[in-house]
Amino acid sequence: MLRTGVLGACGYAGGELVRILLKHPETRLTFLADEMFKGRPMGDAFSSLKGSDLPLCEPLDPEAAAEKADVIFLVQHNGWAMGVAPKLLAAGKKVIDFGADFRFRDPGVYAEWYKLEHTAPDVTKTAVYGLPELKAKAIQSASLVGNPGCYPTSAILGIAPLITNRLIDTSTIVVDSKSGVSGAGRSKLELGFLFSEVDGSVRAYNIGAHRHTPEIEQELGELAGLPVTVSFTPHLVPMVRGILTTAYASLAGKADTASLIGLYRDFYKDAPFVVMLDEGDYPATKGTLGSNYCHIGLKVDDRTGRVVVVSAIDNLCKGAAGQAVQNMNLMCGLDERAGLDSPAVYP
Amino acid sequence: MLRTGVLGACGYAGGELVRILLKHPETRLTFLADEMFKGRPMGDAFSSLKGSDLPLCEPLDPEAAAEKADVIFLVQHNGWAMGVAPKLLAAGKKVIDFGADFRFRDPGVYAEWYKLEHTAPDVTKTAVYGLPELKAKAIQSASLVGNPGCYPTSAILGIAPLITNRLIDTSTIVVDSKSGVSGAGRSKLELGFLFSEVDGSVRAYNIGAHRHTPEIEQELGELAGLPVTVSFTPHLVPMVRGILTTAYASLAGKADTASLIGLYRDFYKDAPFVVMLDEGDYPATKGTLGSNYCHIGLKVDDRTGRVVVVSAIDNLCKGAAGQAVQNMNLMCGLDERAGLDSPAVYP
Amino acid sequence: MLRTGVLGACGYAGGELVRILLKHPETRLTFLADEMFKGRPMGDAFSSLKGSDLPLCEPLDPEAAAEKADVIFLVQHNGWAMGVAPKLLAAGKKVIDFGADFRFRDPGVYAEWYKLEHTAPDVTKTAVYGLPELKAKAIQSASLVGNPGCYPTSAILGIAPLITNRLIDTSTIVVDSKSGVSGAGRSKLELGFLFSEVDGSVRAYNIGAHRHTPEIEQELGELAGLPVTVSFTPHLVPMVRGILTTAYASLAGKADTASLIGLYRDFYKDAPFVVMLDEGDYPATKGTLGSNYCHIGLKVDDRTGRVVVVSAIDNLCKGAAGQAVQNMNLMCGLDERAGLDSPAVYP
Amino acid sequence: MLRTGVLGACGYAGGELVRILLKHPETRLTFLADEMFKGRPMGDAFSSLKGSDLPLCEPLDPEAAAEKADVIFLVQHNGWAMGVAPKLLAAGKKVIDFGADFRFRDPGVYAEWYKLEHTAPDVTKTAVYGLPELKAKAIQSASLVGNPGCYPTSAILGIAPLITNRLIDTSTIVVDSKSGVSGAGRSKLELGFLFSEVDGSVRAYNIGAHRHTPEIEQELGELAGLPVTVSFTPHLVPMVRGILTTAYASLAGKADTASLIGLYRDFYKDAPFVVMLDEGDYPATKGTLGSNYCHIGLKVDDRTGRVVVVSAIDNLCKGAAGQAVQNMNLMCGLDERAGLDSPAVYP
Repeated sequence: MLRTGVLGACGYAGGELVRILLKHPETRLTFLADEMFKGRPMGDAFSSLKGSDLPLCEPLDPEAAAEKADVIFLVQHNGWAMGVAPKLLAAGKKVIDFGADFRFRDPGVYAEWYKLEHTAPDVTKTAVYGLPELKAKAIQSASLVGNPGCYPTSAILGIAPLITNRLIDTSTIVVDSKSGVSGAGRSKLELGFLFSEVDGSVRAYNIGAHRHTPEIEQELGELAGLPVTVSFTPHLVPMVRGILTTAYASLAGKADTASLIGLYRDFYKDAPFVVMLDEGDYPATKGTLGSNYCHIGLKVDDRTGRVVVVSAIDNLCKGAAGQAVQNMNLMCGLDERAGLDSPAVYP
Repeated sequence: MLRTGVLGACGYAGGELVRILLKHPETRLTFLADEMFKGRPMGDAFSSLKGSDLPLCEPLDPEAAAEKADVIFLVQHNGWAMGVAPKLLAAGKKVIDFGADFRFRDPGVYAEWYKLEHTAPDVTKTAVYGLPELKAKAIQSASLVGNPGCYPTSAILGIAPLITNRLIDTSTIVVDSKSGVSGAGRSKLELGFLFSEVDGSVRAYNIGAHRHTPEIEQELGELAGLPVTVSFTPHLVPMVRGILTTAYASLAGKADTASLIGLYRDFYKDAPFVVMLDEGDYPATKGTLGSNYCHIGLKVDDRTGRVVVVSAIDNLCKGAAGQAVQNMNLMCGLDERAGLDSPAVYP
Repeated sequence: MLRTGVLGACGYAGGELVRILLKHPETRLTFLADEMFKGRPMGDAFSSLKGSDLPLCEPLDPEAAAEKADVIFLVQHNGWAMGVAPKLLAAGKKVIDFGADFRFRDPGVYAEWYKLEHTAPDVTKTAVYGLPELKAKAIQSASLVGNPGCYPTSAILGIAPLITNRLIDTSTIVVDSKSGVSGAGRSKLELGFLFSEVDGSVRAYNIGAHRHTPEIEQELGELAGLPVTVSFTPHLVPMVRGILTTAYASLAGKADTASLIGLYRDFYKDAPFVVMLDEGDYPATKGTLGSNYCHIGLKVDDRTGRVVVVSAIDNLCKGAAGQAVQNMNLMCGLDERAGLDSPAVYP
Repeated sequence: MLRTGVLGACGYAGGELVRILLKHPETRLTFLADEMFKGRPMGDAFSSLKGSDLPLCEPLDPEAAAEKADVIFLVQHNGWAMGVAPKLLAAGKKVIDFGADFRFRDPGVYAEWYKLEHTAPDVTKTAVYGLPELKAKAIQSASLVGNPGCYPTSAILGIAPLITNRLIDTSTIVVDSKSGVSGAGRSKLELGFLFSEVDGSVRAYNIGAHRHTPEIEQELGELAGLPVTVSFTPHLVPMVRGILTTAYASLAGKADTASLIGLYRDFYKDAPFVVMLDEGDYPATKGTLGSNYCHIGLKVDDRTGRVVVVSAIDNLCKGAAGQAVQNMNLMCGLDERAGLDSPAVYP
């Protein structure tokens, strides 16, 4: 049985990862680390894990992780993984990073948006952007995966078939995303994330300046074969989990809703976690809660010549921990769906 | 004191209207009608009104309304007001309709989007589209006002200054709106509006087909002096009140955020209910809850050459009942702010 | 592999049952029935099940169920199962009823609280009240189980150790429960369950008159060996899932918090789904969401001589579908935890 | 016009107070202070107040307050007011304290529950517990009022008529309260108040140990003429505003629901903010949101010999700022309802 380790187990993404790995049929959680909860059981961090049969949290020590685990998930702030991953890789480990350190092919883009000099640009060259629906092959042979951001996951899955098939004018893409609050993480004790501030309220933030923008542009640009620039606006919505992304683009030629849906189904025919909805049906984030699925619906608007694509995911699962496990499955030769095929909790 | 009457007092918009009129300093509620609650006190429909000093609900009888009130608010389904308003106007009443019957200058547009033949096209010609920030003068001399829809109110207020000043390419407008659930009304007992279905979920609906689209296009087109077509996508968000509209458009020339904010402030300098936020500040619906204010923030995105405008209102207040009272104030020569200047309830 | 069938698959409890059975390692869902969705896939009823590998819904036909399944779950309104269960039992099936028909040992109690004459009192005598933590033995040899109500599950698990150990004055029990809205079911399209009415609001209902009262009293009375009467007040809270029950009783003698917690741990030492919290720690429903666990905390209040016990469950899981599967596991000789040991989704 | 000042304007209770005073017809807000927002406009603290015509926030300086205002509201942490109020009183000011410093007649009780030595016991003797429904006379002639806690307001209003009329056994009182999260205040940036932790969850806290307990006991004891001890359990519910208190007590003799309701109506006949519901009707917090009203419903349960009383308030309004203004009105000879008679915002 594969041994797995988590460096940063007690944030929301880390906790979701532990929840999934705890029931994974082919792996065993052998190492958990979290600075805030070191020496304590996971149940102290998440009441949902009280009584679970899990190792105690240890300090955030990559060497201990390397000793006790074969696959190691890094769930820390941006800039942390680039100092740690090279050593783990050198020790022959498979590494999946939840942060942005290994998502960008161009270190300059990383430096520009994250205001951090990359200290391991060579290692980054070996990393694969871990969106299995687009890069399954590369992931299967990778030792280091940069696990995508939550917004990019929903946006890229929604738009990729259009670009690949040259159906839209790539200069017209608008990406409007609505996210639950858990994406802000657990340690961010800011006024704006208090229940009394969030409940009953929607707001936009970081307009045109969110760090997930270059990720979307990099992947869409690769598919297009030319640079792509998108308008991306994230919104905070009064719910805990879920991202709904509504993407707009002008069609390059004539197209109708039914044929585009058919084209999406074909594009994702080997993607077990993408569910393409019928014409007239649009996704709700509720249908994906706690699951690794991405639901997509679309509509061609003849009046405006635009196509509108709506995609829904659970930001902590397909948008973070679930996708990381999907990547692990591919990297380790397991069934891509192992540990991930539970349907959403509904309602 | 002006006597006011409400035909349709016990839906959410009607209830909000009663709440506002109850404390209006220059008018008195003298007639309330609702088919479902006829013969009963308003407190039976809204526990918030238990013990209030209000007339009992009567049957939905326009003649009784005309007898007992000077200004009459019609808060019924689309298609109802066009049969009733002509008689009320003939009796010398001022009429404000919450439905769509008197919003369109072109009866063909109404027929196309609402699938209803208009039976009072002549009267419609005398009606004014009741968005006071754009049409205060016309409203002041009107006897019949078509009170705007909630989505159009937020969208038009957000975009109007850009079009009036010829700053954007009007073929590039995308309007992405996020609404609370109260907009669906109280009588719509559908599965999709149950708490268990709405809570924790965001979804898009009626993509490219929502009836508020032609309203937005009519008003923006009038400002532009040419036909305008917009991509409009409404979303349902797990909150009761509030609409946040995010509008995107390509700039016709160079512009920066600060100068556009200044231009908006100038545009709305006589509009007491528009609050223009500072650079870097974007509105949250929470800041408008229960109030008649519209908060607007914007950002010029140099990377994409687009401007992004975000506007927030309370859909039941500025998006319906509050705006109706604002219209009444103007129609009757009262202070535009009378009964409407309470700040939002926060948090 | 055991074949399972569900009569009533498309309400909230039915959907939860399908969600659990879909991943059950020892059984296979071979029959699904629902009148509203007959002929259609489960994904039409629950977007979370779109794309799942499940049989289509059939009409509500017990004979078809008996042909295709070995264990049959009845998820219909009260009064339905007593006409159906006898035939299924005669056909050698194991039957688990989600309704109240087979919960009461005294048909008079059923008639009094449910206003229904029982038509199968003899069969009822063979039924077991399906609370595994108290009746595992009897359930193991039962063919018919009356699956407990959601409120009684939380209340009885919270109070049972106190009564069994003769620690409280049974005439002083007050049970105050707070429930999410999904307990009202999916077909009840009433004003009171609309999002706009529920959100931001707590209310009590059916005070002293809720039909779950006699269930609580029956089971506590059996443990006490004498009739027990409780004050039970259910409340509706603005959340989808979860019940928190706060129970109060006067202590018969001296006791302290730590020793009572120890006594609870001993009482539930063989109950895999009861998690007893440490002193000073009280449960939140969030810690049980989507899981079959029941979290219990307690406090002895020396000032008043009362003990306060707080128990949390997911009403649809441990309070309905999860418990039903737990009962099936026992009835069929499977591991009590099979298909049920996933931790809660958090946050 | 009376000049009012607020020391601590930018917490939730302070903001609610400013919202109310801004529209008060007989007073003018002339002094606002808050350490965190000194030198800045209220709109920086609450987006709902952007554009309002209010003085800037000043430092927390009681002398400046005394110079600029006649009535001064102290909205600070417990222990702060006892150092400040004596000077303000000496300067001839009317003082209303939102904290606990002047709520207790016995300084020993204050010391025991708040772990603070009282430094102004003599001034405390002149203070009145500001629950106008019970103490209107005393408040009218008071210069210093200890504004009640939110939980005690709901509990005492619910139980007072029963005790005053000797209808219950005062040793059997159980008070189970469910509160929105805004009661925790705005500055408490704790994990437990993050949206992701609160949403979808109910929990009990401080069982038998909440500091509002002695307040309830003091006031009920005074009405009873003997010491009263109650079991009080506060709960956190996923909503922003509102408290619902469910109180249980054994009836001393026979009583029926209708007659008790009549008795309550008589008891509160001069209380403009208490709304007594009809038999079979129980309050929801939603009916009181943003208003100063308290809704009460009750039920006699013949089976158990207990009466169950349910009371609902808005914790920030009737439970804090609204009640403070009601006290000011009485202290200053104004109409008790001035500035407070707006109905709740619904839905």
